Amino acid sequence: MDIKDRVRNKALHAKIVSAEEAATVIKPGMNIGTSGFTPSGYPKAVPLALAERIKKEHFQINLWTGASVGKELDGALAAVNGINKRLPYQTNNEIRKSLNSGGVKYCDLHLSHTAQMSRYGFLGGKVDVAIIEACAITEEGHIIPTTSMGNSASFVQSADIVIVEVNTSQPLALEGMHDVYIPLDPPHRLPIPIVKADDRIGTPYIPCGLDKITYIVPCDIRDDVRDLAAIDDDARAMSALFIDFLKKDIKAGRMPKGLLPLQSGVGSVANAVVSGFAESEFTDLEVYTEVIQDGMLDLADVGKLKSASGTSFSPSPAGLERFYQNIDTYRKIMMLRPQEIANSPEIARRIGVIAMNTAIELDIYGNVNSTHIMGTKMMNGIGGSGDFARNAYLTCFFSTSTAKNGAISSIVPMVSHVDHTEHDVDIFVTELGVADVRGLSPKERARVIIENCAHPDYKPMLMDYLERAEKATKCAQTPHILTEALSWHTRFIETGTMKKQ
Amino acid sequence: MDIKDRVRNKALHAKIVSAEEAATVIKPGMNIGTSGFTPSGYPKAVPLALAERIKKEHFQINLWTGASVGKELDGALAAVNGINKRLPYQTNNEIRKSLNSGGVKYCDLHLSHTAQMSRYGFLGGKVDVAIIEACAITEEGHIIPTTSMGNSASFVQSADIVIVEVNTSQPLALEGMHDVYIPLDPPHRLPIPIVKADDRIGTPYIPCGLDKITYIVPCDIRDDVRDLAAIDDDARAMSALFIDFLKKDIKAGRMPKGLLPLQSGVGSVANAVVSGFAESEFTDLEVYTEVIQDGMLDLADVGKLKSASGTSFSPSPAGLERFYQNIDTYRKIMMLRPQEIANSPEIARRIGVIAMNTAIELDIYGNVNSTHIMGTKMMNGIGGSGDFARNAYLTCFFSTSTAKNGAISSIVPMVSHVDHTEHDVDIFVTELGVADVRGLSPKERARVIIENCAHPDYKPMLMDYLERAEKATKCAQTPHILTEALSWHTRFIETGTMKKQ
Repeated sequence: MDIKDRVRNKALHAKIVSAEEAATVIKPGMNIGTSGFTPSGYPKAVPLALAERIKKEHFQINLWTGASVGKELDGALAAVNGINKRLPYQTNNEIRKSLNSGGVKYCDLHLSHTAQMSRYGFLGGKVDVAIIEACAITEEGHIIPTTSMGNSASFVQSADIVIVEVNTSQPLALEGMHDVYIPLDPPHRLPIPIVKADDRIGTPYIPCGLDKITYIVPCDIRDDVRDLAAIDDDARAMSALFIDFLKKDIKAGRMPKGLLPLQSGVGSVANAVVSGFAESEFTDLEVYTEVIQDGMLDLADVGKLKSASGTSFSPSPAGLERFYQNIDTYRKIMMLRPQEIANSPEIARRIGVIAMNTAIELDIYGNVNSTHIMGTKMMNGIGGSGDFARNAYLTCFFSTSTAKNGAISSIVPMVSHVDHTEHDVDIFVTELGVADVRGLSPKERARVIIENCAHPDYKPMLMDYLERAEKATKCAQTPHILTEALSWHTRFIETGTMKKQ
Repeated sequence: MDIKDRVRNKALHAKIVSAEEAATVIKPGMNIGTSGFTPSGYPKAVPLALAERIKKEHFQINLWTGASVGKELDGALAAVNGINKRLPYQTNNEIRKSLNSGGVKYCDLHLSHTAQMSRYGFLGGKVDVAIIEACAITEEGHIIPTTSMGNSASFVQSADIVIVEVNTSQPLALEGMHDVYIPLDPPHRLPIPIVKADDRIGTPYIPCGLDKITYIVPCDIRDDVRDLAAIDDDARAMSALFIDFLKKDIKAGRMPKGLLPLQSGVGSVANAVVSGFAESEFTDLEVYTEVIQDGMLDLADVGKLKSASGTSFSPSPAGLERFYQNIDTYRKIMMLRPQEIANSPEIARRIGVIAMNTAIELDIYGNVNSTHIMGTKMMNGIGGSGDFARNAYLTCFFSTSTAKNGAISSIVPMVSHVDHTEHDVDIFVTELGVADVRGLSPKERARVIIENCAHPDYKPMLMDYLERAEKATKCAQTPHILTEALSWHTRFIETGTMKKQ
């Protein structure tokens, strides 16, 4: 199909240019806001052309996206040292290397905060150029997005220059899958009118208009989707433990019988947990989350998914094929929203999501590190975990009890970085068990976490720390031996294991 | 005035009993939910009678309140070792001693979370007995609260047994000041229909009904309100710096010209900052906050306060007199709401509050400790600071640059406990300056915070740490020397000062 068939208003055809030409509007130091959330729905042709320009002209831009994006954007620009500031999330190896070594300045933000902070002018000026991947452009000049919504709608609204990449590899059948709503800013903001996970409140396109589009660029590069790790025994165990926990909570009257909308973080463990629901007795499941992954296709395929709302569709390559083959069926129950709506604290709390996210490490008192390896090195970012964890009906963090073949205990005396505080967690699940810390004091929490979730290799060490900390600090809500609190991390750095030699 | 005039339905007069008799319905291990938020509007007679009973019978109950309460409740029950679990906030000396030494189990919660967690059954069963202070009881058996709303309405809704303390020291003119709205729980919850800070959405009483009231107890003990510290030079400097910052942000287009609703934490510094607005050029100020303090009376008295919404009225003794003398005027612009509405993340984000809270310490990367002295000893609790900080339009934390006559630097390499993460802060204010960290990476943040906010005695030490950490960790988003990160705290514990000897 020719790009001109996807640009439905003929007057717009005059704006179709090459990626190279479109990239010339970008000036050094500009804030570039793009579509894309996970390696889905991000622009590819213009960033590649921009990277080529930067290679010759040596300048930098600031890159604002929905979340992580694919290699043609983050990777290509980082490789030519083209990024000054990056926000709000990343997973690309090139970027990660650069931000940790001090090249790229990375501002790690709650994903629901990014769009409004950009509109408020809090991120260093407003969006100068929006580059948005589209399936098509309507007769009125509105943009039909592709496999993600992210911050695209807000960036288009704010930007002076709008470049639309019409990607012919994206099926037109995506049209109708989006629900675009941009809140007004204070003091004019109104309630977001979602009361059920699948309520539609907006338009199926990004409002733009003929005049606002500066350039249209053809592209046929496919989303660089990635394989998920196979579901292993640990992930299966965590999923089973969690589903069993929910059943007991329903029985105890603490959870509605039909459950509540599921939210699950990005990645293999979260995907495995969702997949586990396909084999459970639960039916008519609702999903209100950030990223729609393969596990939700599994739920749909066994007829257990009532609806799934997210801001991105981020399947494995096999999942993408599966989706494309039945897109008309999936589209009826799946919806992509702007991330400030998908991750909205207001909605998460109102509809009462069950939040399932992954921790890098947690401590005996229930604080969670989601971002920093050994307290210093950025892994990916906080993503949407904070938006959901703080506001969910029930907040669960998952982690295997150890990492690096047992050299790292995921449960430590004190986490080396805090992304979610003790105030924001309800339960923890490792492959060994569930720790329910709701309504507990720190000393009570510590015992439940160690007893139910820690690995046997580390359990005595953790209990020993707790008991000595209690003795050392006679007057403490949260006992710690400060000279030792981070010693597990330093031992790992020095010896390669948290175990005592 | 006789209590019978305040119990407007004569059929209820038969339920009037002594505090001692009412206290007999309380059984060991029960969850007791009371009114009260700060030393305002808490029950007094029944708790004192309960403490007497416990002194003889030796048992414990769990105490759930709005926030901190007065000595007749927290103090009296802690003194007889009558409290097993305490939540969600406290400031009483007896309780603080006991929870730190391991007597009382203290569960420190976000104040907007408490009511719904109690309804969800997450806090160890539901409320067994609600004890609520009232001005009066209506003809229909509904309860007119006094100087705070807190969690009273939700506790009344959930409890099997409701004891109403009708306090004749509380003026009847408080009637009409309350706006009571209890959200439904998921999956039935609807948008909270507040779009302006002063919108009224509920009833002026706590819905209860004649049958639900178990006992009515007369009381004439006044709220144990406390003096605020006098506004000192540091507080005055912080207030001036902050107001100046706001003016510049308005000029830069980052803040609406008429400002946005102010939220201010409890205590002397917050009160001083609010007071500072009375001398500013700003007019028609709106307040959407937790606690209405003297500073807001100052604003009202100079005609600059359009409206103030809170969950508690917590003045100094002089402020209380001032309030009583002009109660009919103040009542027109002041409103008390349940704390899950006053502190609602949904509303804070929608109307876009300017959140002003106090930190115990912050670190060079912008993490904030609001609760734990030297990482272990509980001060008060997180209170509502998290509800507002995460969801505000602009989030500011205040702290003097040093404490304990300079022996403690309020800015440290790594905070010893995290209540607000680097993702939740916009600006910091000490008496020395303002650090605007919006949109900055951790390394950028560190330099701005040290340069603008740190005390000269500690500035070189902080820069030295930062630079050495950067050298030591070549691959770090957030450079730290883990063996040294908490050494300032251990040095203080060992030597009495964070300064190097």
